[in-house]
Amino acid sequence: MKKVRIALLGLGNVGIGVCIILYSNRKEIMKRSGYEVEIAKILVRDKNKDRDVYIPDGVLTTDFNDILNDDSIKVVVEVMGGIQPSKDYILKCMDKKKHIVTANKMLLATNGDELFQKAESNGVMLQYEASVAGGIPIINGIEESLTANKIKELYGIVNGTTNYILTKMQLDKMDFDTALKQAQEKGYAEADPTSDIEGFDAQYKLAILSSLAFGTKINIDNVYREGITKISSIDIKYAKKFNMVVKMLAIAKDHFGRLELRVHPTMIPNDHPLANVYDSFNAIFIKGNAVGDLMFYGRGAGSLPTGSAVVSDIIAILRKNVDSQSSLPALKNNLWDRKIDDIGKSKGKFYIRITVEDQSGALGKITTIFGKYSISIRSVIQKGEKNSKGGVNIVLITHNTCKEKIDCAVKEINNLESVIAINNIIRIEDFK
Amino acid sequence: MKKVRIALLGLGNVGIGVCIILYSNRKEIMKRSGYEVEIAKILVRDKNKDRDVYIPDGVLTTDFNDILNDDSIKVVVEVMGGIQPSKDYILKCMDKKKHIVTANKMLLATNGDELFQKAESNGVMLQYEASVAGGIPIINGIEESLTANKIKELYGIVNGTTNYILTKMQLDKMDFDTALKQAQEKGYAEADPTSDIEGFDAQYKLAILSSLAFGTKINIDNVYREGITKISSIDIKYAKKFNMVVKMLAIAKDHFGRLELRVHPTMIPNDHPLANVYDSFNAIFIKGNAVGDLMFYGRGAGSLPTGSAVVSDIIAILRKNVDSQSSLPALKNNLWDRKIDDIGKSKGKFYIRITVEDQSGALGKITTIFGKYSISIRSVIQKGEKNSKGGVNIVLITHNTCKEKIDCAVKEINNLESVIAINNIIRIEDFK
Ligand SMILES: NC(=O)c1ccc[n+]([C@@H]2O[C@H](COP(=O)([O-])OP(=O)(O)OC[C@H]3O[C@@H](n4cnc5c(N)ncnc54)[C@H](OP(=O)(O)O)[C@@H]3O)[C@@H](O)[C@H]2O)c1
Ligand SMILES: NC(=O)c1ccc[n+]([C@@H]2O[C@H](COP(=O)([O-])OP(=O)(O)OC[C@H]3O[C@@H](n4cnc5c(N)ncnc54)[C@H](OP(=O)(O)O)[C@@H]3O)[C@@H](O)[C@H]2O)c1
Repeated sequence: MKKVRIALLGLGNVGIGVCIILYSNRKEIMKRSGYEVEIAKILVRDKNKDRDVYIPDGVLTTDFNDILNDDSIKVVVEVMGGIQPSKDYILKCMDKKKHIVTANKMLLATNGDELFQKAESNGVMLQYEASVAGGIPIINGIEESLTANKIKELYGIVNGTTNYILTKMQLDKMDFDTALKQAQEKGYAEADPTSDIEGFDAQYKLAILSSLAFGTKINIDNVYREGITKISSIDIKYAKKFNMVVKMLAIAKDHFGRLELRVHPTMIPNDHPLANVYDSFNAIFIKGNAVGDLMFYGRGAGSLPTGSAVVSDIIAILRKNVDSQSSLPALKNNLWDRKIDDIGKSKGKFYIRITVEDQSGALGKITTIFGKYSISIRSVIQKGEKNSKGGVNIVLITHNTCKEKIDCAVKEINNLESVIAINNIIRIEDFK
Repeated sequence: MKKVRIALLGLGNVGIGVCIILYSNRKEIMKRSGYEVEIAKILVRDKNKDRDVYIPDGVLTTDFNDILNDDSIKVVVEVMGGIQPSKDYILKCMDKKKHIVTANKMLLATNGDELFQKAESNGVMLQYEASVAGGIPIINGIEESLTANKIKELYGIVNGTTNYILTKMQLDKMDFDTALKQAQEKGYAEADPTSDIEGFDAQYKLAILSSLAFGTKINIDNVYREGITKISSIDIKYAKKFNMVVKMLAIAKDHFGRLELRVHPTMIPNDHPLANVYDSFNAIFIKGNAVGDLMFYGRGAGSLPTGSAVVSDIIAILRKNVDSQSSLPALKNNLWDRKIDDIGKSKGKFYIRITVEDQSGALGKITTIFGKYSISIRSVIQKGEKNSKGGVNIVLITHNTCKEKIDCAVKEINNLESVIAINNIIRIEDFK
């Protein structure tokens, strides 16, 4: 059996998962890759830390040069995270003709183009299945299996923390803060949950996915982003009345070459496959012009699921014959130039919750303003009872319109004397 | 741009879908494959038939030799169906070093081994993504993305017709015959629906999937099979009382090297992701020892979805460089020898519906017999009212036991004087 030596940069959650899989599925991996994989070196910050996995003597190092300068190491797995020094290390390894596997969504979403170009110019592979949706093979799915399609729409639940929080709010009637606390206790959310709950993590992943799906460079700043912190139990209750649930979605649509990219909490029909994705599970729903509706569902994070994706990437490199410099890969994210539309232009239906003084004329004034902007209203709920703040809730669902118009109308409504507050505006996707 | 000439054997549902995709997604396919794909020849029985797609003059032929003997044709797509002459044609094309794409589950499930060996000895590729679950990339998913895993369990809704029928019975309270008729009217079921409703189609697909998932040859006769014709509306109503639904599942489990393979209607919890797969949609749910739970969902049939899988296979061949004889593929379905367990040994929970004479002692006698075989009962429903046949329904759900024991117990119960009929025995999967 041929042998191949690899190195890991990092031995945290994902790194440990990679080691466990390489040990416990050793035979399968040998048969499937044609190689016996040896972990030659692992870069860490602290060699003396207690690790939840067996590591042979002499493998841990704190000196990156031990890996960089070892020509027998053919594949380097970056599972450290962050932009620097990860980026620097990857570029240097590529210069030494080492193939790279990374799980680093932040790095790819912000510096992907430079990394792919370096990979191409050095004739090495850059694999990144684990960077989006953990164990779900969505990168390979798009790159190898949906090649016959124009991908028209993509909707992803790609952040486990926010899906966990929204699930708890929906099914267990928790409020946001309690659900967040529980997510942190369960280890889903970081001590600083900003990246998850404000949608940065999903934004990175959408940039990576849409770059691949639409074969184009994506500037992350053009991906619209809203977090879930403004979602309250009241909104989830109203959603239910409309047979909908609230999910944090990463959405990409192709309008004949122009792209619409946005990440935000979204109301979706409760019988849609994405509505039944609970807890920390992830799912990506795709509409292709040939394949129709397709969904991938699974674990978006965790040591072993993410490790599964990383190791499948290692095997993919070995199968392409790690020893010979491959003519591959093409710069897959750079086939076309595509414009990303301004978010104001994006169309859809909206849920708007407003608190007004208990005054019969309020609804009339509000609908008049919507009328002025040609926004038509599909449903209204106005309850008699005052809420805790002494006002009355009005909830409206619009027909299709564009965000720009909603923003203008809402601004005017906010100025009405009878309006106490615009409590929330949530986009609706009905997949039609 | 390099050009490649391909041929189709057959221009029915799938063949037409392939042509439409090659025309309408031409640019994408060129960018992604590096080739301009030209359909050089298409084999049909009747050249004068009206076809739902544009075909240039001179492309249709009724003579297979036009394709076989044309050395400029590098890839042949078999979408005729049936065992012969498809098998013969494929083998001959491989001898001429043509790569093959097929959608033919029946042929692969029964003659796959011979075809893969011939492909290997001729250094050509044999691609078959469309043979299981139409547009869902489950073959590539297992072959390329789950390579780091021991696949422990696989559950597939892989037959659209039976899923459509069971959906109509469940959601629209139709009886079996009405639902089948509607499936036929909608074009889901063939005029002769036997292959679908008796589970042969699902049996083929399970043989293909498990051969790949477990890296072994599968003799189709060792795949246990039961159809859905015995499922009645009453069973579906009872399932609901137990918070379950009835789905036609193809099930494969790995018991440390020994395999359990079976196709039958199954009661599953109504909150499982497979329970929400409706109408003619397909889905495959997999448990891997690294990735955990994973599900692929999409269109299991139809011209364009199936064409999407076929064309992705063509592109995969082109990307591996169609011009050079590849060193690939390994005989992926023949890595290990694995024993398939006798169905009697398979464990699980069972739903049993029995009609007894209205006689208070019947239940006692029945449970005594179960006790004799150490089968313990989880729930019983016995209704006071007589059913239309003048008997009383008793419905039992067992705890885990093996099929062998159930068969013996049921035989004894059937001999009880107070028992009018054993109406149905349905397996339960709770995924625990
Ligand atoms: N966790 C998941 O479920 C998941 C899922 C998908 C993708 N990812 C991505 O995978 C990557 C790793 O995530 P993780 O959860 O495994 O992170 P983690 O648990 O924080 O582990 C990071 C590892 O990198 C090492 N490290 C960090 N900076 C270093 C430096 N400057 N020099 C040397 N070693 C350094 C740490 O060493 P010490 O151990 O010595 O401190 C640690 O072993 C991230 O890009 C993340 O976004 C994670
Ligand atoms: N339909 C689906 O959604 C689907 C999904 C997955 C897999 N598949 C598989 O794909 C294959 C094709 O299915 P299909 O639905 O496209 O079948 P179909 O509509 O019946 O088409 C069969 C085609 O093959 C031609 N043909 C049949 N026998 C021939 C022979 N002896 N010589 C020359 N031509 C012959 C027919 O020619 P004429 O047109 O001249 O009669 C017809 O064009 C089958 O293996 C099926 O199991 C189908």
